Amino acid sequence: MVATLAFWYEFASTYSYPAALRLEQVAAAAGVEIEWHPFLLGPILARQGWNDSPFNLFPAKGSYMWRDIERVCAREGLPFRRPSAFPRNSLLAARAALVAAEENWCGEFSRAVYRANFVADRDIADPKVIGAIIDELGRSSAAVLARAATPAIKDRLRAQTDEAMARGVFGAPSFTVGNELFWGNDRLEQAVEWAKEGRAA
Amino acid sequence: MVATLAFWYEFASTYSYPAALRLEQVAAAAGVEIEWHPFLLGPILARQGWNDSPFNLFPAKGSYMWRDIERVCAREGLPFRRPSAFPRNSLLAARAALVAAEENWCGEFSRAVYRANFVADRDIADPKVIGAIIDELGRSSAAVLARAATPAIKDRLRAQTDEAMARGVFGAPSFTVGNELFWGNDRLEQAVEWAKEGRAA
Repeated sequence: MVATLAFWYEFASTYSYPAALRLEQVAAAAGVEIEWHPFLLGPILARQGWNDSPFNLFPAKGSYMWRDIERVCAREGLPFRRPSAFPRNSLLAARAALVAAEENWCGEFSRAVYRANFVADRDIADPKVIGAIIDELGRSSAAVLARAATPAIKDRLRAQTDEAMARGVFGAPSFTVGNELFWGNDRLEQAVEWAKEGRAA
Repeated sequence: MVATLAFWYEFASTYSYPAALRLEQVAAAAGVEIEWHPFLLGPILARQGWNDSPFNLFPAKGSYMWRDIERVCAREGLPFRRPSAFPRNSLLAARAALVAAEENWCGEFSRAVYRANFVADRDIADPKVIGAIIDELGRSSAAVLARAATPAIKDRLRAQTDEAMARGVFGAPSFTVGNELFWGNDRLEQAVEWAKEGRAA
C-alpha cells in the first residue's frame, strides 16, 4: 500500500524552492500522493534561540548556502536569483496557501510564490504581489486575501506550525511519511521512495 | 584536466563516517585523486559560540540525525551502531592521521578509526584503541604515537584546522576542489564529478 507524503515547507526557505518545484513530478512518477503543509519556520528557530535565519546568523553557513543553492538549481535546470532581501516575511503567503489548499490549488500557488521570491526577486510579504499571483491563477485575489485574514486560517497556520514542531521538524523543507521524517531537498527522492514502499509506520 | 579532491573530515563526525568509507571507491571510479585532510571541528564550532555538537545542543536536530545516519548507512550497506558517547574526543586520532598521511596510509587508518567509533563503539581518544588500530595495520604504534605527540604534528593539525576555516568549512565532512566547497556526505558524488571535470578554479 502506497503511503501519503506530507511536504512541510516555508516560503522564505531557499532549499524549499527546488523541492516545491520538483515535488509533484517526482511523486507522480512514483504514484505517491502528496499533501502540501506550509508552516512558519521562524517560531521553530526562535525556540532554539535564533531570531534570524541561521544563514544570516552563521556567515560561513550562509556563504556556502548561496553558492550551493545556485549549484542545486543549475543541476535541476531551475532558474535562481539571490533575493535582495532574505529571509522574506512569509506569513501572508503561508496563510494564502492554506486557503489554496482548501480549494486544491496549493501546488500551483506555492510554485508561483517561490518563483516570485527566488527568481523574480519580489517581496512576497506584499499583498499586491500575492494578489497578482492569485489573479494570474484565475482565482479572486480579493476573496482569497479576505479568507486568508480570518481567525480560522490564522489558527490553522499556528496549528500546522505546532504540528511540524511536534513531528520533530527543525528545518525546511521536510517530508513526513507516517512518523518517518526526512529533511532537505536532498531527501525528496528518498522520502517519495519510502512512501511508495508503503513504509508509513 | 582532472582536479584533486580534498576531503576535510573530523573523526567524531557521524556523517564523515560513510563519506570516509565511500570516498576512495567513488573517487577511483572517476579517476580523481584525493587528499585526506583531518581537522578538528570543535574550534570552528566554538567560533560560532557552540561548546558542544549542534546535535547535542539542538535536540530536534540530534534526534533526526541519529535516525537519518542509520538510514544513510543502511542504504550504503555500512554497519552502524550509535556510539555510547558523542562526540568523542578526536584529537589523538587526528594527530595520528597526519602521521599516517605522511606515510601514505591515511585512508586505511581513517576508515579503521571510523569503524572503531561508529561500529565497535570504542573510545577513539584512548591511546590503546588508536595504538591497536595502528598495529593491526602493520605499523608501529609506539613510533606513530610518539610522532603524533611532537610539536610538528600538533602544529600541523592546528594549521590544517585554520586552513579549513579559511576555506569556509563550517561542518564535516566537507570537500574542496580548488575554491569550490561542498558540504556533507550527500555531496560526495557531486564533488568528485566536479574534480573529474577539472573545474578546480
